[in-house]
Amino acid sequence: MRRLCQTGATLVLGAGLGSLATRLLSDRGRQEEKRPGLLSHVPVLPVPEVPTVQASELTVSPGSSGAVMKYGFPSLANIKTRESYVTSYDPRTRTASWVIERLNPASLTGASDRKYCDFKEDNSVHVFHRATNADYRGSGFDRGHLAAAANHKWSQQAMEDTFYLSNVAPQNPHLNQNSWNNLEKLCRSLTKQYLNVYVCTGPLYLPRPEADGKLFVRYQVIGKNHVAVPTHFFKVLILEQADGRGVELRSYVLPNEPVDDKIPLERFLVPIETIERASGFLFVPNILKRSGNLRTISNK
Amino acid sequence: MRRLCQTGATLVLGAGLGSLATRLLSDRGRQEEKRPGLLSHVPVLPVPEVPTVQASELTVSPGSSGAVMKYGFPSLANIKTRESYVTSYDPRTRTASWVIERLNPASLTGASDRKYCDFKEDNSVHVFHRATNADYRGSGFDRGHLAAAANHKWSQQAMEDTFYLSNVAPQNPHLNQNSWNNLEKLCRSLTKQYLNVYVCTGPLYLPRPEADGKLFVRYQVIGKNHVAVPTHFFKVLILEQADGRGVELRSYVLPNEPVDDKIPLERFLVPIETIERASGFLFVPNILKRSGNLRTISNK
Repeated sequence: MRRLCQTGATLVLGAGLGSLATRLLSDRGRQEEKRPGLLSHVPVLPVPEVPTVQASELTVSPGSSGAVMKYGFPSLANIKTRESYVTSYDPRTRTASWVIERLNPASLTGASDRKYCDFKEDNSVHVFHRATNADYRGSGFDRGHLAAAANHKWSQQAMEDTFYLSNVAPQNPHLNQNSWNNLEKLCRSLTKQYLNVYVCTGPLYLPRPEADGKLFVRYQVIGKNHVAVPTHFFKVLILEQADGRGVELRSYVLPNEPVDDKIPLERFLVPIETIERASGFLFVPNILKRSGNLRTISNK
Repeated sequence: MRRLCQTGATLVLGAGLGSLATRLLSDRGRQEEKRPGLLSHVPVLPVPEVPTVQASELTVSPGSSGAVMKYGFPSLANIKTRESYVTSYDPRTRTASWVIERLNPASLTGASDRKYCDFKEDNSVHVFHRATNADYRGSGFDRGHLAAAANHKWSQQAMEDTFYLSNVAPQNPHLNQNSWNNLEKLCRSLTKQYLNVYVCTGPLYLPRPEADGKLFVRYQVIGKNHVAVPTHFFKVLILEQADGRGVELRSYVLPNEPVDDKIPLERFLVPIETIERASGFLFVPNILKRSGNLRTISNK
C-alpha cells in the first residue's frame, strides 16, 4: 500500500505521511479565504438577460432538500439533487466529482432494503458521458458507492438513488469490502456523537513520480464509455457538534487498491488543504462562512 | 506522430484515422439531442432562494460581450468572461476546459502589440488551483495560448487578456511554433470566407492502450501547482456562412508532441462526436438550436 504525503504545494504519491496534527484553522496561510473563495467557481453567465448566481449569495432553508448543502458547494458544475444526496457530475470521467450526504440517526433508520435496488444508468446524463453497467462488467472493479446505500435506510427512494451509476466509481473490490466499508461504518457511528454528520465523497487522480523524476497522473479507463478509475478516494466529514459550539472537519484519502484493514483509519487522515488542492474544490471557505469555530482533525 | 481513431464509442490513441467524410448532421444516431442536451450540465442549484438557470433559457444579445457565445456553452462550470473570449476553467488541471473566441476581419485588425503583453497569473482563480509562470519555468513546455494573441489585434486589452495563464496550457514547443501556429493562421484566414469564425479551443486527456491491453490516461503535471500537460488539443471551428444559409463545423485534434508541419491540417480533422465524448462537452445540440442547417466538415 502506498501512502500519502503533502509536498510543498500539492499531494503526491510517495514517501511517508506528512505532519499530522489537530489544528484550529485560522487566516494564517489562508489569506485567500478573505477573497471570494468559491466565488471564483461560480458560473457567472456573461448574458445580460440571466441573473448572475454567486456562491456567496446561496442560502439554504433548514429542513428543505437543500439542507444537505448547509456547508456550501465544493464546486458548482453540473449539480444534481437527489433524495439522498447532492452531487456534481464530471462528464469527462463519467463519475461524480463529489457527492454530499447528511447523516443522522433518522437517516440511518427505516425499512428500506438493498435487495430491491439495482445499479442503473443515470438518464439525466447525456449518453456520450454516461457510465453503464456493461462498462463495469469484467473490469475487475466494483461499482463503488460514493454516497453509501446503508446511510439512507430512511427512504426506499433515497436508497435507490444511491444506485445511480453517477453515484458510483470503479473501486478495487478489496478496498470496497474492507477499509472503505469500515470508513463508511465510522461515518454512521459518528452520528451517535454529533448532531449531524455531513459526508462529502469523491474520486481523486493523483500524480506520482516516474523513473525520470517527472510527475505523471495515470489512471485506467474501463468499458466502451471509458469510465475513469480513480487513483484514490476522499471523504470529508463535517461534524456538527451537538452543543452548537461549532464543527469539526476530518478528511481522509485512501488509495484505490487493496488496503490492509488492520491499518487504523486515522492513518488516512490528511490535511483538508491537500484534498482542496488535488481535487480543485474548496471546503474551508464555505464552512468558515457558516461556522466561526472550525476544528480540523488531521490525526487523533 | 500518433494519429487518432474513433473506436466504437470513444477516442483512443492507436491505429489509423477513422472514417472521415463530409456529412450533414441529423437526428440519426443522435436521438439524445431531442433530450435537454446541455440541460444536463446546468448548475441547477437546489436552493429555493436562488433562481435556477437553465442552459436552454440562455439568450445572447448580438453586439454584447455575450455575442461570442452565440452558439452556446459547451459546459457551464466556472465560466469567466474576458474582453477577447469566454472560458470555462478547470481548477483540477489548472488550465481552461475550453476557450471560445469570435474572429472576423474587425477583430484581426488594430494597433495592439504583443510586446506589451506578459504572461500573468489569473488572480480570479483561487491560489490553490492557479498556474504560475514559475510552474512553466524549466519544464520544457511552452505557455501555449488557447485563444491566440494574434486573433485580437482590435484591442490592447483583448490581446492582454489572452496572456492570463488560465488561457494557457503546457504545449510542446515544436507543436506550438509549427502545426498549431498554422492551425491558428488557418482560423484567421477563414475570416475572408465566412461572416464570423467562432473558435473553441481546449485540452484533451486521451487514453491509450498499454502493454496489457488495458486503456490508461497518462499525462504529466508540471511545477509546484501541478499544471496538467494535455495529451492533445482540440479546436472546434463554427463557421458562419456569409449568405446566411447556415453554419459549418470543423473539428481538429492534434497531439501535444512534435508534428511535422508538412502534414496537411486536414489530416487532423475528426468527427465532432469524438471531441464531445472525450472532452465531456456538447457542441452540436447547442448549434442545432440556433441553426437548422449544420454541415460538419470531417475531411475535405
